[in-house]
Amino acid sequence: MTLFYQPDVENSAFLTPEDSRHARVLRLKPGDFIQVTDGIGGLFDAQLTNISDKKTTFNVTQSQREVGKRDFRIEIALAPTKNLERTEWFVEKAVEMGVDSIQFFKSEHSERQFLKTDRLHKIAVSAMKQSLQYYLPRIGELQDYTTFVRSVRFERKYVAHLPDGAAPSPLLTAAKAGESYTVLIGPEGDFTASELGLANQFGFETTTLGQTRLRTETAALAACTILNALNW
Amino acid sequence: MTLFYQPDVENSAFLTPEDSRHARVLRLKPGDFIQVTDGIGGLFDAQLTNISDKKTTFNVTQSQREVGKRDFRIEIALAPTKNLERTEWFVEKAVEMGVDSIQFFKSEHSERQFLKTDRLHKIAVSAMKQSLQYYLPRIGELQDYTTFVRSVRFERKYVAHLPDGAAPSPLLTAAKAGESYTVLIGPEGDFTASELGLANQFGFETTTLGQTRLRTETAALAACTILNALNW
Repeated sequence: MTLFYQPDVENSAFLTPEDSRHARVLRLKPGDFIQVTDGIGGLFDAQLTNISDKKTTFNVTQSQREVGKRDFRIEIALAPTKNLERTEWFVEKAVEMGVDSIQFFKSEHSERQFLKTDRLHKIAVSAMKQSLQYYLPRIGELQDYTTFVRSVRFERKYVAHLPDGAAPSPLLTAAKAGESYTVLIGPEGDFTASELGLANQFGFETTTLGQTRLRTETAALAACTILNALNW
Repeated sequence: MTLFYQPDVENSAFLTPEDSRHARVLRLKPGDFIQVTDGIGGLFDAQLTNISDKKTTFNVTQSQREVGKRDFRIEIALAPTKNLERTEWFVEKAVEMGVDSIQFFKSEHSERQFLKTDRLHKIAVSAMKQSLQYYLPRIGELQDYTTFVRSVRFERKYVAHLPDGAAPSPLLTAAKAGESYTVLIGPEGDFTASELGLANQFGFETTTLGQTRLRTETAALAACTILNALNW
């Protein structure tokens, strides 16, 4: 059964224009059953009452809450890549794997100083539906590195970086199951020494994601995969 | 220093046409030093002797063997995706993470019955150089599922599949460090019961890669990431 997204099912028993068009493409008819999620753990069985390109309506027949709720939380923070497709790809894959929050920061070495998150939000919605999940990850607006680093409230904080010489703990060994994690991913061109210093000062532990030199988006997805695997 | 690829450095002290053009783009000059790998663990320091678009020549000044040799081996086998970009993306990311062999099979539910591997090979070379690795993974031609399943010689064999009801061991728990692993990834449209039966008959253990429904290429990369993380 196809899954649709409506963030406010309680008060809005209709599909968004985008999902309404999708319902038409699928040749759904009044009386057909669909599933709708609100992206905050709600899963609703619903029966279509009217099909329209702008506003397809439904009646909820059954509701479930907190579907697939997890006892850990993953936040990945990265600088947007120069080639935006790489960031978009990361968002799709991270949502499929399971992520709670994706945050973007500006770093000294990152070339991209502006980021439109509308399209990333759409990709996240689509990946959530595709992977049959019912929590939509938060996608933050691009912010200053310092502002972000200071604001993190998750329990376990990591900065993924491969320093010359020293070998920090791999993430799989450093992290424990059932916690909330924030992982800062090194930007293209890497962190500066003062950015790393700031992260350490604010309690971020240096960790590695592998023995090879990973692109930003690959490292970001590796962190997400490892933290999920740790919690299965 | 830029890394170039020449599979037969011993007998061919020159760059491929592609790498020769790249050397020109980088404005390298005779006398400049480069690094060359043969993709089988060799890393060569070399000095350029002549720059040409077709055949840039060099003299090897130092050789190292078995650079970054690992004590485990990862083989990922998947059906090529309908949208080939997804397969290409997987090849790039898997090579960055570290993979020894990528194999392709035809399954009953896979739509793609032909696969050109030239472009995949180029992507693998590029990702190997980008991530500073010196072993080029093998990329197999598309073959029959049965032929492939019968031919696997690696020690630990897994088939990644999320069966209805039963919950098999997650890959991170099932696998142990320091072995050779082959993981069969479910195609778009999933395995048929007889394909799964054949895998089990040939010693493939059913495993899961997560609690969400993953696309083929996401599952394939997750398997690769988890097996690498287990061995760090």
